[in-house]
Amino acid sequence: MRKINKILVANRGEIALRVMRTAKEMGIKTVAVYSEADRNALHVRFADEAVCVGGPKSNESYLRGDVIIDVCKKLNVDAIHPGYGFLSENAGFAKKVQEAGIIFVGPSPEAIDLMGSKLAAKAAVAKYNIPMVPGTEEAITDVEAAKEIAKQVGFPILIKASAGGGGKGMRIVEGVHQFEEQMQLAVSEATSAFGDGSVFIEKYIGSPRHIEIQVLGDTHGNIVHLFERECSIQRRHQKVIEEAPSSVLTPALREEMGLCAVNVAKACDYVGAGTVEFLVDENLNFYFLEMNTRLQVEHPVTEQITGLDLVKEQILIAEGKPLSFKQEELEIIGHSLELRVYAEDPANNFLPDIGKLETYRRPQGLGVRVDDGFEQGMSIPIYYDPMIAKLVTFGKDRQEAIDKMLRAIDEYQITGIETTLPFGKFVLQHEAFVSGNFDTKFIERYFTPESLKEKEDNGAEEVAVALAALLLNTKKTVVEATGSNNSSTSSSNWRKNRV
Amino acid sequence: MRKINKILVANRGEIALRVMRTAKEMGIKTVAVYSEADRNALHVRFADEAVCVGGPKSNESYLRGDVIIDVCKKLNVDAIHPGYGFLSENAGFAKKVQEAGIIFVGPSPEAIDLMGSKLAAKAAVAKYNIPMVPGTEEAITDVEAAKEIAKQVGFPILIKASAGGGGKGMRIVEGVHQFEEQMQLAVSEATSAFGDGSVFIEKYIGSPRHIEIQVLGDTHGNIVHLFERECSIQRRHQKVIEEAPSSVLTPALREEMGLCAVNVAKACDYVGAGTVEFLVDENLNFYFLEMNTRLQVEHPVTEQITGLDLVKEQILIAEGKPLSFKQEELEIIGHSLELRVYAEDPANNFLPDIGKLETYRRPQGLGVRVDDGFEQGMSIPIYYDPMIAKLVTFGKDRQEAIDKMLRAIDEYQITGIETTLPFGKFVLQHEAFVSGNFDTKFIERYFTPESLKEKEDNGAEEVAVALAALLLNTKKTVVEATGSNNSSTSSSNWRKNRV
Repeated sequence: MRKINKILVANRGEIALRVMRTAKEMGIKTVAVYSEADRNALHVRFADEAVCVGGPKSNESYLRGDVIIDVCKKLNVDAIHPGYGFLSENAGFAKKVQEAGIIFVGPSPEAIDLMGSKLAAKAAVAKYNIPMVPGTEEAITDVEAAKEIAKQVGFPILIKASAGGGGKGMRIVEGVHQFEEQMQLAVSEATSAFGDGSVFIEKYIGSPRHIEIQVLGDTHGNIVHLFERECSIQRRHQKVIEEAPSSVLTPALREEMGLCAVNVAKACDYVGAGTVEFLVDENLNFYFLEMNTRLQVEHPVTEQITGLDLVKEQILIAEGKPLSFKQEELEIIGHSLELRVYAEDPANNFLPDIGKLETYRRPQGLGVRVDDGFEQGMSIPIYYDPMIAKLVTFGKDRQEAIDKMLRAIDEYQITGIETTLPFGKFVLQHEAFVSGNFDTKFIERYFTPESLKEKEDNGAEEVAVALAALLLNTKKTVVEATGSNNSSTSSSNWRKNRV
Repeated sequence: MRKINKILVANRGEIALRVMRTAKEMGIKTVAVYSEADRNALHVRFADEAVCVGGPKSNESYLRGDVIIDVCKKLNVDAIHPGYGFLSENAGFAKKVQEAGIIFVGPSPEAIDLMGSKLAAKAAVAKYNIPMVPGTEEAITDVEAAKEIAKQVGFPILIKASAGGGGKGMRIVEGVHQFEEQMQLAVSEATSAFGDGSVFIEKYIGSPRHIEIQVLGDTHGNIVHLFERECSIQRRHQKVIEEAPSSVLTPALREEMGLCAVNVAKACDYVGAGTVEFLVDENLNFYFLEMNTRLQVEHPVTEQITGLDLVKEQILIAEGKPLSFKQEELEIIGHSLELRVYAEDPANNFLPDIGKLETYRRPQGLGVRVDDGFEQGMSIPIYYDPMIAKLVTFGKDRQEAIDKMLRAIDEYQITGIETTLPFGKFVLQHEAFVSGNFDTKFIERYFTPESLKEKEDNGAEEVAVALAALLLNTKKTVVEATGSNNSSTSSSNWRKNRV
């Protein structure tokens, strides 16, 4: 048990602010680190102390673990919260933090290491009978042996380069007759790309949902799960919209997956907040993918449906306190959605957009939470992840959370930069999303730049009307009901008013 | 059953916006009315249509029921939401709205009328054995008869002019020996002030808490309560800080008071959202005060602990839908606080302050909600209630809600105008408040302008330091950890940084 009096957040943007807010509420002094590109960032202003740790590129600043540890020593920092990304899943860094006598708010270096390796993780969880996507245990090069395994697994199967990444050397094989040809292609592709032709054979899950379970473990051996997050709406294999609970899990399946996740955490003596990711197929079979040994971007939806402050729990755990609740005391209250607002142009293949937030007004009101790291007039640095904000809504049921999200999207005023807000609106109004009947292929199935077209055209018309009104100096059409000139015209909504 | 497609909000400021947000989420078109002083107000911008209904004074605009009904007819409005204040408890207005074929989002004119009269309300609820403050049933002038009643009630007692108000003709009598003299003084004061010397005798509750119960009734005879709100922190008999649940109610007492409130609502066939106010004495005896037949300013704390959107429930009820939940399905989740941020100077007897919001930055993050009607650069009109915002926090328990409120107060950046924010900070850090051991006399007992002094002095020092830093062009002290100049100084928090 060691009280944390001062914490350094080794991160930037919304997550740095988010962690510092909770630290402040707990009476803990906060230290920000920042790069030269982030001198005016909100997390720097918010912190009690702030230290520039280097140049704008991540490897010049936010990834410089040694410099950050030095700062801790100089400023008598008790603990480091790594946020997500950057050093958060760097076992070597976590180890050096420990060795410097500083608390790392997260799991042990060993747990990070173990879960960072797919094969080691599989081996570690084996005794708990965690369901995995069926396939080869080890890398293989022999075509005949591979074919036998493929037959056992059942087609369609996936061939993946063992040294691979980014889809290179990856092949989907529909039936046994195509197997040899595709395997040979995969091996030669892998050889030329990675200098290693060995591959894995895996059952191909054609229409999966990405569902993950939040877990919390303390230093006294207690581990609970905080239910699931549905993260199937993705672009470029990255999540854009998340929600909790998932609309497909039954209470029995939730319990089963929750137990699985707790067992995965037990397998690595997990301490802190972590996430166990699963694929779920059309028949609601689920398969362990991996464990993320840090706080997730999408943790707010879990906070909203459980009433827990996950950062507070992380810090209490890091201080050595036991969890203050048991699994059976936790329950799901209402429904929550998160839309990641990226500086990206959804009409242009989600390419990052750069520029200045000319207008930036956040939505407000019941059931709306905005976690961000910017304000009006600021520019989005090109060096980092282009996320501007996380727009979170919550209501007593899924439809209410959707209704609040649509209202909040309309109320959010951002100009000067393209964002994923219109994409969010498209998804939230799409029948497949509303009915809950969707998977990770939502975008390739339903979304084209033309999906935004109709709305944009409407927008253009309204801009024209608004501009005309502006020229006539009647920004808002007014009925002077008390005067003689009783005429009225509908005006557009808040978002549309901005010209 | 009649679907509402378009709603007019006969109000301004935060409550107009708050109602419109929910209407929008329900797919209902919104109409704002506004006075000449509110041309640029946020509620005007937010609405689909907006109509100026007259001059800046309330009786030239927001109180002009006939004009507002005319607007509804012209714009095919289905329903009027009155908010609070203005026309919200005007039975005559509610009746005219009904007669014009428009839905009034609220109770019947008869219920408003009945609960608007203290004596009629008392008579109406009599059959339900609702506890009242003991005293005379009717006004009295005879000293001897009054003394007999006073003896029965038990001292201390309160003598109140029946025609009175504002404390005139009001006397607290500690014992029977003072009674005659005080009664005579009260009668003569009442006679000279109101031309009517008759008085009421009432038991004097010296150290009361003000606790109210939220009720919801539908048009099918279902009435439920949504637990209590503690509203004892008041200045000038007006609430400043509210919370739910109260820290003194036991589950049994909560149930008993809840049942009482439901019975009060039954006594007037109540439809919609209403509030039954009680005084609670040191021994946890409770006494019915009155019923407010509208949405309360402090309704958000109830929304946060029940997960219900009260405006949505109001609108569904007004459409004729039955409540979608039963009493036994409702439960209290966590704890919520509200601080009313008034444009008032707490160091100067809470006198209204006027001016422009030079800086206006809202706090954000988990467990923080700001309901307001202003943005940076706007002025607070002098014609209306000087409330700028309602700062609402919620957490899993009372302490967490307090911690979040203190953090949010520090994060709230308002310059150009004095506000109740520092007062809120004083209360939330005061031992009496933190322990839950307080009553409606909190301010007179504990607060003086000097209570803010110490903090102000600190503030002044920090302003000086910050100004000096500004002159030296080192707004934030920076450790160039990667350079050679490794020195560091603590900086102040966010709020203090604004100079």
